[in-house]
Amino acid sequence: MPDDLSTAPQSHKRPHGSGPEVPASMRAWVLGNPGEMKMIDKPVPTPGRAEVLVRVDAVAICATDLEILEYGTPALVEGGAPFNKDFTPGHEYMGTVAALGPGVDQFAVGDRVTVEVHAGCGQCKRCRMGMYTSCHNYGQNYGDHDKGHRANGFTTNGGFAEYVVNNVNTMIRVPDDMSDEEATLVVTAGTSMYGLTELGGLVAGESVVVIGPGPIGLLAVAVAKSLGASPVILVGTRDSRNEIGRKLGADYIINPREEDAVARVKELTGKGADYVIDCAGNETTVNQSVHMTNRGGRICLAAFPKNKVNFDLGALAVNNIYLYGIRGEGRSATHRAMAFMADRRFDAGLVHSHTFPMDELPTALKYAAERIDDAIKVVVSMHKSTSGGDK
Amino acid sequence: MPDDLSTAPQSHKRPHGSGPEVPASMRAWVLGNPGEMKMIDKPVPTPGRAEVLVRVDAVAICATDLEILEYGTPALVEGGAPFNKDFTPGHEYMGTVAALGPGVDQFAVGDRVTVEVHAGCGQCKRCRMGMYTSCHNYGQNYGDHDKGHRANGFTTNGGFAEYVVNNVNTMIRVPDDMSDEEATLVVTAGTSMYGLTELGGLVAGESVVVIGPGPIGLLAVAVAKSLGASPVILVGTRDSRNEIGRKLGADYIINPREEDAVARVKELTGKGADYVIDCAGNETTVNQSVHMTNRGGRICLAAFPKNKVNFDLGALAVNNIYLYGIRGEGRSATHRAMAFMADRRFDAGLVHSHTFPMDELPTALKYAAERIDDAIKVVVSMHKSTSGGDK
Amino acid sequence: MPDDLSTAPQSHKRPHGSGPEVPASMRAWVLGNPGEMKMIDKPVPTPGRAEVLVRVDAVAICATDLEILEYGTPALVEGGAPFNKDFTPGHEYMGTVAALGPGVDQFAVGDRVTVEVHAGCGQCKRCRMGMYTSCHNYGQNYGDHDKGHRANGFTTNGGFAEYVVNNVNTMIRVPDDMSDEEATLVVTAGTSMYGLTELGGLVAGESVVVIGPGPIGLLAVAVAKSLGASPVILVGTRDSRNEIGRKLGADYIINPREEDAVARVKELTGKGADYVIDCAGNETTVNQSVHMTNRGGRICLAAFPKNKVNFDLGALAVNNIYLYGIRGEGRSATHRAMAFMADRRFDAGLVHSHTFPMDELPTALKYAAERIDDAIKVVVSMHKSTSGGDK
Amino acid sequence: MPDDLSTAPQSHKRPHGSGPEVPASMRAWVLGNPGEMKMIDKPVPTPGRAEVLVRVDAVAICATDLEILEYGTPALVEGGAPFNKDFTPGHEYMGTVAALGPGVDQFAVGDRVTVEVHAGCGQCKRCRMGMYTSCHNYGQNYGDHDKGHRANGFTTNGGFAEYVVNNVNTMIRVPDDMSDEEATLVVTAGTSMYGLTELGGLVAGESVVVIGPGPIGLLAVAVAKSLGASPVILVGTRDSRNEIGRKLGADYIINPREEDAVARVKELTGKGADYVIDCAGNETTVNQSVHMTNRGGRICLAAFPKNKVNFDLGALAVNNIYLYGIRGEGRSATHRAMAFMADRRFDAGLVHSHTFPMDELPTALKYAAERIDDAIKVVVSMHKSTSGGDK
Repeated sequence: MPDDLSTAPQSHKRPHGSGPEVPASMRAWVLGNPGEMKMIDKPVPTPGRAEVLVRVDAVAICATDLEILEYGTPALVEGGAPFNKDFTPGHEYMGTVAALGPGVDQFAVGDRVTVEVHAGCGQCKRCRMGMYTSCHNYGQNYGDHDKGHRANGFTTNGGFAEYVVNNVNTMIRVPDDMSDEEATLVVTAGTSMYGLTELGGLVAGESVVVIGPGPIGLLAVAVAKSLGASPVILVGTRDSRNEIGRKLGADYIINPREEDAVARVKELTGKGADYVIDCAGNETTVNQSVHMTNRGGRICLAAFPKNKVNFDLGALAVNNIYLYGIRGEGRSATHRAMAFMADRRFDAGLVHSHTFPMDELPTALKYAAERIDDAIKVVVSMHKSTSGGDK
Repeated sequence: MPDDLSTAPQSHKRPHGSGPEVPASMRAWVLGNPGEMKMIDKPVPTPGRAEVLVRVDAVAICATDLEILEYGTPALVEGGAPFNKDFTPGHEYMGTVAALGPGVDQFAVGDRVTVEVHAGCGQCKRCRMGMYTSCHNYGQNYGDHDKGHRANGFTTNGGFAEYVVNNVNTMIRVPDDMSDEEATLVVTAGTSMYGLTELGGLVAGESVVVIGPGPIGLLAVAVAKSLGASPVILVGTRDSRNEIGRKLGADYIINPREEDAVARVKELTGKGADYVIDCAGNETTVNQSVHMTNRGGRICLAAFPKNKVNFDLGALAVNNIYLYGIRGEGRSATHRAMAFMADRRFDAGLVHSHTFPMDELPTALKYAAERIDDAIKVVVSMHKSTSGGDK
Repeated sequence: MPDDLSTAPQSHKRPHGSGPEVPASMRAWVLGNPGEMKMIDKPVPTPGRAEVLVRVDAVAICATDLEILEYGTPALVEGGAPFNKDFTPGHEYMGTVAALGPGVDQFAVGDRVTVEVHAGCGQCKRCRMGMYTSCHNYGQNYGDHDKGHRANGFTTNGGFAEYVVNNVNTMIRVPDDMSDEEATLVVTAGTSMYGLTELGGLVAGESVVVIGPGPIGLLAVAVAKSLGASPVILVGTRDSRNEIGRKLGADYIINPREEDAVARVKELTGKGADYVIDCAGNETTVNQSVHMTNRGGRICLAAFPKNKVNFDLGALAVNNIYLYGIRGEGRSATHRAMAFMADRRFDAGLVHSHTFPMDELPTALKYAAERIDDAIKVVVSMHKSTSGGDK
Repeated sequence: MPDDLSTAPQSHKRPHGSGPEVPASMRAWVLGNPGEMKMIDKPVPTPGRAEVLVRVDAVAICATDLEILEYGTPALVEGGAPFNKDFTPGHEYMGTVAALGPGVDQFAVGDRVTVEVHAGCGQCKRCRMGMYTSCHNYGQNYGDHDKGHRANGFTTNGGFAEYVVNNVNTMIRVPDDMSDEEATLVVTAGTSMYGLTELGGLVAGESVVVIGPGPIGLLAVAVAKSLGASPVILVGTRDSRNEIGRKLGADYIINPREEDAVARVKELTGKGADYVIDCAGNETTVNQSVHMTNRGGRICLAAFPKNKVNFDLGALAVNNIYLYGIRGEGRSATHRAMAFMADRRFDAGLVHSHTFPMDELPTALKYAAERIDDAIKVVVSMHKSTSGGDK
């Protein structure tokens, strides 16, 4: 029985290969009424086959956490997911291996790890192709239809808790000299890396435009630069964030409030950009993306509008442009992102703005949602006891 | 000097390697006022390096011919193309090699050939990648900026004439037992093949939906079936055309006037289609395409709306769907299409409905434009003298 | 505990979702001394999560079965595999679903299925890339290091028995109108398809040479032809088998005892072949493969020499040729092969020569090993009671 | 008429778009008897369509130059190339644009450029695929069969001269702050980049072994590291060169005279390397390459034995390993290499050891051939007048 659906007490025999310190119960934030979270005591879950128990050390807040808090389960889960108010969100976390499930020897108790979100079912046609983030059994990890897909913090309990169970496939080692906060950013950088991977990966010397200097956009600048893209052009309306983009490697900054982004990209590139990564995803930017991409170029849609938008599909077809709608951090892109982060090719920590202790998760969520004090990436540290938003 | 821009008389020395029969002048249809064509006498053009003179035997009418007739040059040519009223459209033609340019030994006078549209410049980044239909020097084949790109019937004179010059890269041999009319369909089948190539090509056993039973859609059914796709589902509102689709290999037909196309595709496939090829390209069908594609699936946009449409980009991103806007028949797809046609895997001739003699091009255009007598693919035969629309 | 290592009696409670007819014990052939097999009674195994119990209906004999019979476990299993004399080989089998493991709803009891060999661990880097036949935990499916990899008939019990457990990932539906014998050939055809997939897949109109008219080679001819390759050239020394190759689609046959295979391929293709699939894999053929491949062409090594051979690597590098050593039937190629077989694109049954009843497995093995009566593919039928080698 | 075959005087009208300074004749080194070069006066060639005249500023010596000097034309040119003693080798050169051919506007007189070797014919199947270094008309650039393929310094006159004609496709801009000597290394780095491209390109976080610390091997270390490979392991017997490899990014050095390279790679990587680039290419290293690559891994053969070698093809097939024999610097890899060099990701200059003036080419060749004074990459500077081998 998967941990996330059980509210009944479990027998708390020591998990296979656990350290001495794993307690029987833990503190965890769970969904309450829409927009509300509450802290409760929960049993510490037990890792199964190919799973590991992670003691959470830090967890970053993502925009989708705010949506889950408000709207609950992703609509992706067919028939509606069996979420309840005991569900713990949070998917950008890192921590320390506390116990191993049966057969696991890839990790050892005490290893420092960060995680990606999805473990595919391994049975569907997409998983068999290596496309585990497009698993056709998304959300099927319970009851008689358990196919084993897990999406941490989406369909299985996540990281706003002291402990969490993870499939070994989602785990990435953290170098000793990387801070907890930076390590939580591997999913963000991995999403950017996944986008660049799907666009073709061979971006050295090619022009890349990133629209939208949110965390994914800023790290897309960093990853594109690391892969040798040239020039890297960032389009954003907030100058303070654009400035971080410049530090992460943007060769040019375009503020569309000050100049025509499409015209400026064509001026800088001649024929238009080879690759555009739209991390804003609104009606204006998706059309800009098409119009600033050169013939035969490619666009990654890493953010997207909630509703239909008026979109120039004709220009896309006439110019033989391919559009990649991506979801998540597939094809082990987190590992490639971590390789660059571990080698200090860029300082992902530049997109981290605030840290709060676990007790202050509601405040942290508020900072993230309202961008208080220019908040970008807000992290909750499980071991920090003092209040406050210091970075 | 390229043939298409010259109105001045040329010296008509016998081209290198020509047969004895090439005359100095020829009859050719040219653009007149919008919507009008007129027959004139023109000098027979001379093939240059890597070029061949083709005596046109048959030419099919494509929807884009009707647009050129009405609106002139494609907007793709930057700065406006130097078209004039002497321009001859027509790009789906086949014929017989009449003369060879210098250095050409891949073909011999008398060879029966059909052609694809684009010869890339060979110098731009897309041509260097093999993406010659996305040439960055599209339309640059004249004057001081001649980069050598040619698009038969679009930017260089086409096949509504007795003779036409072709780059060797655009030429495909025709088997002896294939009719002139069927041979003109290789660009259409090649466009379908290109779409399936860009979608990944490995479609055996995968579900493919084709929306829109026009010539490209019908041959997309045939090509998908030949590549082993299963099931192949055709969505169309015209029952007579759907019936042709069934003969070309469609396992299921959906008439969206009679049932919900998206719901029916999901019923037939379980999770939705692996691949969708939209050959209708209107606001309804592009959204249907997204909604009937399964997670991680792919869509080819082989037709497109002229104006912006209200499009569900969010569903595309959430489901990690990739959308390929294609233009033309790139990556030598015409050769792959011809391999199947030559081997009689499908009868492309099923999409051919009418043949007219060269003198009756205006009637042929009218049949094609107004779908008179259920016209699908209308062909003009250069050697047929009798009037009438017989197939 | 996996079924294959257990010799202790299991509790034989009815498996989850089984039909009424599953007995507690079954007859099974197992390894004896080298070169010997014996029939014993064994407990019927119980399917676990993502597993199915298959009642075997027919099983074909592969050359590697003969090796296992002689030499035991593949050297691939690091540290030596824990095989014992209770091990049942046989990997090219088909049958009927007899019971379902927990959570399985992709199949139903009574479904007719055939199987591919490998189920990857789903945890290693290769499985995460979709390369489950290159699983880095090959053979790790027992004891404390159980990572879940299964290779039917290699590292887990196979099909020379009345029942066998299969991971759902290895199962392929069989059409009603396909014979048991033909259905056993899907692994063979799938191996050929895998080779063509790895070579690039877009072989329509390209020249393909197949060397070696064994079962894989003959079906490589059939698959290449189905994918539109042209010409398809078969190189073989046995005229009777070459003749089967012609029926399966070979456009040209070369008998290297009668003519120089390399020279003849160049004569037929001009510059050499685009693709070569070496299904003989000896010193002569591997060098022929390199020398008959054109610049930029590709070679698939689908058979291989046991020892080092004198090989012209220089010619390979000078001509920018890529060489793909393949093992097995990866990337779901069996499904693509079945799509063509189900659609009757070729008659795989042409490579099947003899059928024996289960009791006569030793005779069947002898026919296969010694090619008695021109045996190609020899099949054991579990339901045939009469003796004899009739097809 | 191509410049390289003409010994007759040409009319020396000023080329289209040339600067004022282009003289009518120039000094050029040409082949003499085997092993000998002599300096003569030659007419300055005239650039044709899509061509540029480059004034050579510096040219590096490659091992293949030494072979051409000794053995003449590559055997690749079918029927034997029409080389004569007026041929000028040298393919790793850089310089300044001196004149433009008709229609060229991608470059301007005075631009600083470096070059890659091959311009494909643009007409064959490989060029149409973007594989211009595998051009099927290699060497066909003369007389009645001129298909336009050019390989600088191999089949058309090269850079050991004051001026040389180049196809625009071979030209790469040089940043102002890059030295002449470093700019000559772009072909070497581009070859390494091509190898990594063909291996899949997504090497971040993957293990890469480079065997052989010659110029290509050392820059393969640098390029792999830049692309994020981890760990990068260099295998070499010469400690001084290994030390340069360490500076260019090697995480580990293995000297096979001191330890078992295969065993050490397995110790460092666990399962073996993901990618191996063999830049030594002898019987020992090609077998080491296979034995140190993990299941499903890939090998690039960037150097190769002249004769057949005893090679373990079986291990390659059993482990599903793919072997890429590469020739040259295809798929615009030089541009990607230059992107990293321009961004100072590594100091390619570390592989440059000596510079000589043009007059001392014979001495420079001797240093390169005999590795005098630990010579690695020896460069000839056209503007340096003082004698000596200073770097």
